[in-house]
Amino acid sequence: IPFKQVENLSHESLIRRAASLVTDSSSTFLSQTTLALIDAITEYSKAVHTLIALQRRYLQSLGNLSPAEEDAIWQVIIGQRSEVSDRQDECKRFELTWVSAFKLCETAAEAAYTSGAEHASITVSTNMQVAESQVAEARKLSVDTDKKLAESKVMEVERVTQDVSSLHNNNDEEEVPEAYLRED
Amino acid sequence: IPFKQVENLSHESLIRRAASLVTDSSSTFLSQTTLALIDAITEYSKAVHTLIALQRRYLQSLGNLSPAEEDAIWQVIIGQRSEVSDRQDECKRFELTWVSAFKLCETAAEAAYTSGAEHASITVSTNMQVAESQVAEARKLSVDTDKKLAESKVMEVERVTQDVSSLHNNNDEEEVPEAYLRED
Repeated sequence: IPFKQVENLSHESLIRRAASLVTDSSSTFLSQTTLALIDAITEYSKAVHTLIALQRRYLQSLGNLSPAEEDAIWQVIIGQRSEVSDRQDECKRFELTWVSAFKLCETAAEAAYTSGAEHASITVSTNMQVAESQVAEARKLSVDTDKKLAESKVMEVERVTQDVSSLHNNNDEEEVPEAYLRED
Repeated sequence: IPFKQVENLSHESLIRRAASLVTDSSSTFLSQTTLALIDAITEYSKAVHTLIALQRRYLQSLGNLSPAEEDAIWQVIIGQRSEVSDRQDECKRFELTWVSAFKLCETAAEAAYTSGAEHASITVSTNMQVAESQVAEARKLSVDTDKKLAESKVMEVERVTQDVSSLHNNNDEEEVPEAYLRED
């Protein structure tokens, strides 16, 4: 038993254990950032869908609503566009964090391998593959959402072009298209 | 209280915690490899000092001892040179592990910073500085020991040159200098 204790306290053994702790915590870090990134992309996609629905409603209602009602929808659209922008920023932020977590796992896998903790190295590599395929799926949704957002901007430009004469006669709404276009 | 719980479970907060776990475990890993490397260098240095002491004793005793006694010391020298070689290999191995632990800490510090865990990032950076200065000190000892080992080899070559004629008359010891020089 004393021999076994010495064996467990050898530098090699302590280093292997420490390396395993690093690969475990790196895996946890990667899975947290993966979940965050996937959630952020989902929320961004939802926000863009809501924006598009609001824009459609606004376009359909043009001419059928009072200026006050139109203005109310307009304010909601502005709010929603700001929400989309926030969600997009969040995606970019979590994308950076995810990439740095992924690199960290790579380094941890190498360090574990160098330390003789091959099993820990393999485990973290497997987790990286899973995370990568999950994020690849989410990125498809993100690309699709970017496309929809670009289309929604085209839709808005068309509306502004069609509608610009009516706005000239209304001082209250004159600054709205400028504020709206600011984000393009 | 429910609001606080939600705050604690935000993605940002979970990521920061996970990043802190990574910097903590990376720091542990680095300190384990630092201790291992310093111990290995110390052991290497001790082994070289023992080797040199044995060589001196051997040189001083040449001509004063019986062939059997001389051979006994000679066997101890061979054993000690193999011990030195093992210790040197151990130093190289722990040096690689240490470098990989240091790189890992760099990556962990960056990842923590990206995740908003600035405090964790600073802590691991401080630990890295401490480890680096400890290892720099140990490396001086290592360089010094390498020099001593090189000198001990010169000493051996001189001995073999001086002593080569006496060995020609003794069949039992004829292969010894060859076996000895094999490691140079």
